[in-house]
Amino acid sequence: MPYFDMASSAPLHPVARQALLAALDEGWADPSRLYREGRRARLLLDAAREAAAEAVGCRPDELVFTPSGTRAVYGGIAGALAGRRRAGRRLVVSAVEHSSVLHTAAAHEADGGTVTEVPVDRTGRVAPGAYATALREAPDGVALACLQSANHEVGTLQPVAEAAEECAAAGVPLLVDAAQSLGWGPVEGNWSLLAASAHKWGGPAGVGLLAVRKGVRFRTVPPTDERESGRSPGFENLPAIVAAAASLRAVRAEAAAEAERLRGLVDRIRARVPELVPDVEVVGDPERRLPHLVTFSCLYVDGEALLHELDRAEFSVSSGSSCTSSTLTPSHVLRAMGVLSEGNVRVSLPHGTAETEVERFLEALPGVVAQVRERLGAPKPAETAEPAVAPEPEPEPDVALVVDSLGKRCPIPVIELAKVIGQVPVGGVVVVLSDDEAARLDIPAWCEMRGQSYEGERTADRGVAYRVRRRA
Amino acid sequence: MPYFDMASSAPLHPVARQALLAALDEGWADPSRLYREGRRARLLLDAAREAAAEAVGCRPDELVFTPSGTRAVYGGIAGALAGRRRAGRRLVVSAVEHSSVLHTAAAHEADGGTVTEVPVDRTGRVAPGAYATALREAPDGVALACLQSANHEVGTLQPVAEAAEECAAAGVPLLVDAAQSLGWGPVEGNWSLLAASAHKWGGPAGVGLLAVRKGVRFRTVPPTDERESGRSPGFENLPAIVAAAASLRAVRAEAAAEAERLRGLVDRIRARVPELVPDVEVVGDPERRLPHLVTFSCLYVDGEALLHELDRAEFSVSSGSSCTSSTLTPSHVLRAMGVLSEGNVRVSLPHGTAETEVERFLEALPGVVAQVRERLGAPKPAETAEPAVAPEPEPEPDVALVVDSLGKRCPIPVIELAKVIGQVPVGGVVVVLSDDEAARLDIPAWCEMRGQSYEGERTADRGVAYRVRRRA
Repeated sequence: MPYFDMASSAPLHPVARQALLAALDEGWADPSRLYREGRRARLLLDAAREAAAEAVGCRPDELVFTPSGTRAVYGGIAGALAGRRRAGRRLVVSAVEHSSVLHTAAAHEADGGTVTEVPVDRTGRVAPGAYATALREAPDGVALACLQSANHEVGTLQPVAEAAEECAAAGVPLLVDAAQSLGWGPVEGNWSLLAASAHKWGGPAGVGLLAVRKGVRFRTVPPTDERESGRSPGFENLPAIVAAAASLRAVRAEAAAEAERLRGLVDRIRARVPELVPDVEVVGDPERRLPHLVTFSCLYVDGEALLHELDRAEFSVSSGSSCTSSTLTPSHVLRAMGVLSEGNVRVSLPHGTAETEVERFLEALPGVVAQVRERLGAPKPAETAEPAVAPEPEPEPDVALVVDSLGKRCPIPVIELAKVIGQVPVGGVVVVLSDDEAARLDIPAWCEMRGQSYEGERTADRGVAYRVRRRA
Repeated sequence: MPYFDMASSAPLHPVARQALLAALDEGWADPSRLYREGRRARLLLDAAREAAAEAVGCRPDELVFTPSGTRAVYGGIAGALAGRRRAGRRLVVSAVEHSSVLHTAAAHEADGGTVTEVPVDRTGRVAPGAYATALREAPDGVALACLQSANHEVGTLQPVAEAAEECAAAGVPLLVDAAQSLGWGPVEGNWSLLAASAHKWGGPAGVGLLAVRKGVRFRTVPPTDERESGRSPGFENLPAIVAAAASLRAVRAEAAAEAERLRGLVDRIRARVPELVPDVEVVGDPERRLPHLVTFSCLYVDGEALLHELDRAEFSVSSGSSCTSSTLTPSHVLRAMGVLSEGNVRVSLPHGTAETEVERFLEALPGVVAQVRERLGAPKPAETAEPAVAPEPEPEPDVALVVDSLGKRCPIPVIELAKVIGQVPVGGVVVVLSDDEAARLDIPAWCEMRGQSYEGERTADRGVAYRVRRRA
């Protein structure tokens, strides 16, 4: 039963399991105690720290273990902001950071700080020079900048080394959220702080890493105690820490070969899905990306229904669509990229994924998508793909048709738009009324995919009126 | 090899180990995901929450899992203070709370809040009515009160149910730190919030509990996300949570019988140690106490040396003395109680401790203490225990002798005092000059134990001058 959601959580690596078991027997005591059980625990903790620091590329005394990646991100950002209080209270982040970074930024704003969001292009990547611009244009200076090493939803690699140069030139520390990439290799460049999460590389839950380079001003925020150099309080989760370090070393040893193999499988998905399934947009950078992750969006598909059907077909994937049960708005990443969010599927392959599993997925996907589309009454590919006569420029007529999609959830507004666009003459306008947040992203994305012209939105009596001019 | 430091961390219970192993295979996925691995993880999480809530005595939706007891305490206190901001910023705690509570209180003070410390008696127990008094006398109202269920260093049970009544009468929520007692039974009384830590009852590290009763005003402090009802962010440490819940249920099933058995062994230690070792003070309440924990202090003994020798003799115990490697001041608990801190030993017996292990400890202890005392040049029992003629009241002479113990660490100042006290006449005064923080506690405690009269301290040119009048 193929599990294709490594970016969410990886199955436990066999080495992690083995190390965890051994450390349960040897590492349950308090490593700050002087008796033999404590000394044994301390040795295990020290060895784990050395192994993790080597994999991260820092000194052991620069690295602490936290209870999760989220706590590492929060502790790192809050500690660096507190330590740099004299440099002001501005935090710079990219628009596509993990929610743990954005939640921390929101808490900082709520506490009176300011936040600059660096935009990304349609592949999800921040532009070269974007951090330099954000730092230069900050009127009150910048206390800290954050940039992920790779995006968790679309796999795009970020130009971390360049951003680190730009930050260094401005005297601003850079925190890198390396959660998605650390298992594949160290983060290059002259970063100042780094956060990561063990369960993303096949380590156990309950362990994050926070590295703070010597010389970076840092003041831990409460709660504090004497553990982990005063940077991560609470009794050390030692067996899990040991397992995290051991598995990081193990996945790194396999990383180069496995990355090449999975990159081939992902390339196959990237190439085949648009051939097999009509009206699909593969998103993210095709080259500068994580080896194991690919994301695509399917027009006229409800993300939750698609996930459900794929699960019935025994494929576990995730989605950044708005129509998945836990969210009402589409993924902030897809929104920042300006790409289609409906019917969004993220496939991230764990180590060891077999070629046959990927083939089975490619076999199953077209039928599953077609089935969801049919249930939603989506327009047939033939209906929407009709070849259009290129129109002569002509006086543009007024609104020809209004589609009332109020109260209807993604992807219905787009489906209704697609169904009526052929009813107005080329050059005519369809206005879609919608109160679904996803429409703001998906109607322009549909226009881009279908060669129609998106002409903007206006607040209506209820919801928002989206204006689309027929071009094809 | 007897491990007698359960109060610090308990060895993993077999049920915890078994549950952890099973959950490693079944519970590594993200419980917020919709696919089968996620649903399976969610089922495990829900079942663990129900089991833990039943053991705590609350509703499942009142309980969240945190990464540690420390984080549960901090999250609970900070959240309750934030939720009760309108009731002011005063926090009431006992003087003998765990450091996680006192660190949180210190952070609250540093942030502009105020803290009232409720004193304890010589057994470490807060007086009946003490919380009512603290609440009544707070000029600006009280936002939150905290009281541990049992003290972690001396085992004394606190009158939690009474304190909860007193708090309820004043409309103030009470947070109970139940870390030391939850494995033995639920906390009685009408508490509002409760925190605990799994590795204290034989569960794995990496799991704390925070219960917040419905109706208690609560606002989570950052970091926040959507996990654990928004009250404990970061990817759930699911295998450990499952193991924590399973082992809590298991230790509870054994609790009554094991408490009775261990109480017998502890009673034996309480009775025998003062018979076997001269100049020992057993501290803590002899009746209202945890079943498995006993603490005593040995005059003229360096705590670190004692721990080291006991470790060589294969006994793992801990100490609240100032002379253990990680601290420079004696335990705040012993200080608040006003009892001797030097040569302090805490024995806390894990489930299953054999009678023979306790007997071996009682056999080994006198020799170990004698050896440490000899090395320190401590006065022989005969020297100090000489029967004194009860003196006639007479005009009290001036200072007869000054002992310069400047630069000497605990227990040397007390040893030097004990050596010279016989050289002044009954009614005469010895002044000890010391710059060791422990002397402030241990010189009065020595006077109490030896029937001498402590007459207070005065700041000297260097250090502090402690005045002792010979009475015996």
